[in-house]
Amino acid sequence: MKDMIKRHAPKGLLVVLALLVGPVQAQPESLADHQVVVQISEGDAFKQKIVLNNVSNLLKHYGPDLVDIEVVAYGPGLRLLFEDNANQGRIDNLMKQGVEFSACSNTMANMGKDLDDLIAGTEKVAGGVVYLMERQEEGWSYLRP
Amino acid sequence: MKDMIKRHAPKGLLVVLALLVGPVQAQPESLADHQVVVQISEGDAFKQKIVLNNVSNLLKHYGPDLVDIEVVAYGPGLRLLFEDNANQGRIDNLMKQGVEFSACSNTMANMGKDLDDLIAGTEKVAGGVVYLMERQEEGWSYLRP
Amino acid sequence: MKDMIKRHAPKGLLVVLALLVGPVQAQPESLADHQVVVQISEGDAFKQKIVLNNVSNLLKHYGPDLVDIEVVAYGPGLRLLFEDNANQGRIDNLMKQGVEFSACSNTMANMGKDLDDLIAGTEKVAGGVVYLMERQEEGWSYLRP
Repeated sequence: MKDMIKRHAPKGLLVVLALLVGPVQAQPESLADHQVVVQISEGDAFKQKIVLNNVSNLLKHYGPDLVDIEVVAYGPGLRLLFEDNANQGRIDNLMKQGVEFSACSNTMANMGKDLDDLIAGTEKVAGGVVYLMERQEEGWSYLRP
Repeated sequence: MKDMIKRHAPKGLLVVLALLVGPVQAQPESLADHQVVVQISEGDAFKQKIVLNNVSNLLKHYGPDLVDIEVVAYGPGLRLLFEDNANQGRIDNLMKQGVEFSACSNTMANMGKDLDDLIAGTEKVAGGVVYLMERQEEGWSYLRP
Repeated sequence: MKDMIKRHAPKGLLVVLALLVGPVQAQPESLADHQVVVQISEGDAFKQKIVLNNVSNLLKHYGPDLVDIEVVAYGPGLRLLFEDNANQGRIDNLMKQGVEFSACSNTMANMGKDLDDLIAGTEKVAGGVVYLMERQEEGWSYLRP
């Protein structure tokens, strides 16, 4: 129990501080109504196409302002973000509409890749599964095409 | 910031309640910050390796005290827990670090297996999909590698 | 039991509020305790069988009154709902027990299908991924067999 207090007290403090500081607050990261992480963990071209189709359909339905979409690539799925991937043009276009593409740093290390080997604009996250889990904790929906 | 308040307020409340209620309260099942169920429903060796890699990465990131991980095997995925599975040593090691491995009793019946046929330490759950659903209802994140 | 109270108390509260507010209030869509969307996005016969097995196991465990199940078919998964699918009898039977089967209108357009080409009773949703995301936002669990 002591442990729990120690761990959560700073968060309680943050809440109190937030209430005191009030409306001069920094903007939240996003005001979009819908937030979703999309997993790609398989390496075949067909699954890559399906994932990008899914993202396009979400964007088409809501428009870029009402939905936050993050594609998280890990394991064999990292291939989606290799610089020479045939879908690069399509990924660039989705990035321009605000879709984020994140690469798992564990997989990058295993495959001997750094950000220079991946499509420009790719973000690096500590762990693909860690990130997918933490986004769900923050209330994001999860899609595994 | 609005998001942050929404996210952390319940934890702040828990701390306050914990301080008021004090040590007569039964211990919660776990004090880990992160809780995730990981599905394995496919039977091939490559998927088994990916699932165990995912679990290892979660453990490496948080350490065993800050995350609860339950691997739920059903359908062809039950093969991960067959006594003669090549990953037995790795699974034993993960169990020692607190990871739980659960087998679907429906699949066990279909495949003519009982707990003696599975890796020692495996738990039996009424239904793999039932369990994955109920953990989500309890706030756990869901990963489908 | 402790677990059950924790899980059901908010719904009990909703019921009490609904009774107090009275008949001017719209009926809630469902009072089932458990709600889950099940994705089918792959086209092979084995995955179709697994998905239907999963649904059957959920129904067998709870009975039809305590769980709402919606199967969402998109991409190659739409084949599950083609009129000539070998599982038609089984799907009819699940529909009779209240399971809903939904087809992605984007996929239907891509494949040149309309509702007449699909198993009778299939519902059409604007987008498979949109629907899976929005159900999660409403608190439904998500299963990706």
